[in-house]
Amino acid sequence: MPEECDIGLIGLAVMGQNLSMNIASNGFKIGVFNRTYAKTVDTLEIAKKENLTIYGYKTLEELSKNLKKPRKVILLIKAGPAVDENINNILKYFEKGDIIIDGGNEWYLNSEKRIELCKEKNVEYIAMGVSGGELGARYGCSFMPGGSKYAYDCIRDILEKCSAKVGTSPCVTYIGSGSSGNYVKMIHNGIEYGDMQLIAESYFLMKYILKYDNKKLSQVFKKWNEGILNSYLIEITYKILEKKDDLTENDLVDMIMDIAGAKGTGKWTMLESVERGIPCPTICAALDARNISSFMGLRNKASNVFKTVLDIENDLLNALYCCKIISYTQGLFLLKKVSEEKKWDLDLGEIARIWRGGCIIRAVFLDRITNAYKNNKDLELLFLNEEFANEIKNKLPSLRKVISIATTRSVPIPAFSASLAYFQMITSQRLCLNLIQAQRDYFGSHTYKRLDREGDYHTIWE
Amino acid sequence: MPEECDIGLIGLAVMGQNLSMNIASNGFKIGVFNRTYAKTVDTLEIAKKENLTIYGYKTLEELSKNLKKPRKVILLIKAGPAVDENINNILKYFEKGDIIIDGGNEWYLNSEKRIELCKEKNVEYIAMGVSGGELGARYGCSFMPGGSKYAYDCIRDILEKCSAKVGTSPCVTYIGSGSSGNYVKMIHNGIEYGDMQLIAESYFLMKYILKYDNKKLSQVFKKWNEGILNSYLIEITYKILEKKDDLTENDLVDMIMDIAGAKGTGKWTMLESVERGIPCPTICAALDARNISSFMGLRNKASNVFKTVLDIENDLLNALYCCKIISYTQGLFLLKKVSEEKKWDLDLGEIARIWRGGCIIRAVFLDRITNAYKNNKDLELLFLNEEFANEIKNKLPSLRKVISIATTRSVPIPAFSASLAYFQMITSQRLCLNLIQAQRDYFGSHTYKRLDREGDYHTIWE
Repeated sequence: MPEECDIGLIGLAVMGQNLSMNIASNGFKIGVFNRTYAKTVDTLEIAKKENLTIYGYKTLEELSKNLKKPRKVILLIKAGPAVDENINNILKYFEKGDIIIDGGNEWYLNSEKRIELCKEKNVEYIAMGVSGGELGARYGCSFMPGGSKYAYDCIRDILEKCSAKVGTSPCVTYIGSGSSGNYVKMIHNGIEYGDMQLIAESYFLMKYILKYDNKKLSQVFKKWNEGILNSYLIEITYKILEKKDDLTENDLVDMIMDIAGAKGTGKWTMLESVERGIPCPTICAALDARNISSFMGLRNKASNVFKTVLDIENDLLNALYCCKIISYTQGLFLLKKVSEEKKWDLDLGEIARIWRGGCIIRAVFLDRITNAYKNNKDLELLFLNEEFANEIKNKLPSLRKVISIATTRSVPIPAFSASLAYFQMITSQRLCLNLIQAQRDYFGSHTYKRLDREGDYHTIWE
Repeated sequence: MPEECDIGLIGLAVMGQNLSMNIASNGFKIGVFNRTYAKTVDTLEIAKKENLTIYGYKTLEELSKNLKKPRKVILLIKAGPAVDENINNILKYFEKGDIIIDGGNEWYLNSEKRIELCKEKNVEYIAMGVSGGELGARYGCSFMPGGSKYAYDCIRDILEKCSAKVGTSPCVTYIGSGSSGNYVKMIHNGIEYGDMQLIAESYFLMKYILKYDNKKLSQVFKKWNEGILNSYLIEITYKILEKKDDLTENDLVDMIMDIAGAKGTGKWTMLESVERGIPCPTICAALDARNISSFMGLRNKASNVFKTVLDIENDLLNALYCCKIISYTQGLFLLKKVSEEKKWDLDLGEIARIWRGGCIIRAVFLDRITNAYKNNKDLELLFLNEEFANEIKNKLPSLRKVISIATTRSVPIPAFSASLAYFQMITSQRLCLNLIQAQRDYFGSHTYKRLDREGDYHTIWE
């Protein structure tokens, strides 16, 4: 046992196990605690095999006693009530200035309650988004810590060393006050939903319209990964497409059932989008696609009634890139609006920077988002940045062509359609909503505003 | 003063005033109470001018004392805390078997709390959706009462007499238990959002692609109103389009600012749709359109960057009709799923029947929905009904053509696009979600299901 650990970690499921090894391998003394001690013993043994020393404790009190002051503890347990329970326990042993970091995928309003609770005890709180999955936790992930700035400065060195690096730049930054770390992670995941659905629709279009086989599809995505679309998700896509099945003679992707699961952050993003009236239709289409996919029996039945027959490579590349810019614009716009309302003072360029490595949506593309906000930190919509705007202008005809063809040939591409619809709406000086206002005034006396003068007007229509 | 009133009404804003006159004119003795007595005096005077007798009371206690047993009182006040306050007051005077009816536009979960509260006091509760606006309240609206069946039977005669009639059929039915009356009204309004947006997009397409002027547009909608699309909303649309402005020489519709407001039920429908994972993309597109319309400055700015230039009559009619069926399918599917989960036992055919008159989405079309559910009360998706399915099959090429043209010509039609995307998805035997599952298994070991065998599978991808 060391006299004092640099940091403690609670919760030794895969993420916690891997992050504690990551911390240990970066030269920090880490103490761990888990509800069941057997898991702690496991972790210590696994660490030993990699020549890493991790210190295990049987009780929270013991862990607490062995932490350097100010004490720092990271929670990596299932979001929700279990976190409350652990925080209540920790608060028995923690003193003024000690630091609790919740690294779980938590609903941001839950963190806000915990921040208040800790404030009463003068304990510092950080709600931190962690992206990168199991491998990221072990070898470098993207950290999105928000909350106490003082606490951030205390753990900054640890986080920077344990984060993914792009060049020499660590994928971590102080996100902002309050629960902004959770919120930014939630938007990250919403954007991830959009990215994945757009890629999947591209695959679908090439498969059913261009009749490409998986080998050819894999080659296309591999080629795309060498250009403007270079990203982790495109990379794993081409690798997925070349994977053989162990159980049959087929390609594995063809054997996977087309029902996609979800763990909640896409849903959260949409609840926030709807609640705040900041549309994210691309993300919504991606979530809808997963939900609709679950009605498999119903789909089969409906497809028998309608017998839709499923019968473009450079255009598709352009279309996918366009929609990616449009989708990121939506997510970042929601972040900007929330940041204003909650006074989080988010630096969207920095956020894009720490998403370049470690996390799921990592892509070269994010560098340019960082630059866009460096040039203009008040940029309202991402695609109003001159460089992105020019790209969209050049590639928009391709997007229109792809949607037009898919529409004619009955291929469902909801995220492509929703992205173009959003773009069309938000870049239109005139919308059809004047008629909606007239209808609302007609049946409900809701009044309307005029184009030529100020004030609220009501008309006696009949 | 009569010895005893048949029913009481609390809240004399326009809706309450009109409904009390409606009740009085149907031969019932009605007692009213309002927080400020001046409003009560007003109401009595307005009623007198129409030779109607309404009985006004200065206190809730007084109103209570003058109600026939079982006492019945309808609340028509602003949804939220004011309703709780009034219910607490009413419960001081009400006894076992007395009946409270909330006719406000209430969030269904608020009603569920009130149902529990009233149950403790053995007071019966009805949460009732009311659609039809001010005129409907006065001359006949669509009532959607849910909750106590006993209470419904007690007020059935009053509701049937005061409801709109289609032929001899009154636009009221017992909706189901619990808060289902609020929920059905919420879905009604969600569907209303979809209808309005689809009509507005049709107007936009004809205006910018066919270059029709308002007179011609009005003629088209008038003609449409004589066919399968006959409905209140199409009717007011052609009337809106022929209206001249009082302030300028122009047509009024051209002077109305294209920013549409919303009062919350569209948002509620989407929160429920997202929460339950039952997609309603047409309604979502309609809500998004209103929200995006509010960013007028941003739209102007973005349209300057991209300079989108805005440059099909029978096809459009077919497309609009198709999307209307698709939109209703979404809303009714959400209702069906919630009814199953909450055991409300909703009769979707009856619900369509009471929407035929009084309310905003009233349309001849609803008769056929009633018939579809009469033929098969377990119909999963509305458009799987043979008659609707055949219509969609016939009209789908028109919808594809309209979207294709609008896509090429840069006209934003989000609700049309979302409707087709939904249709394509839910009628596809194969979706692209197998690739999404592969990606999720790749980066997060989320596992996947196979097409050829049972169980959950995980692959070591690299």
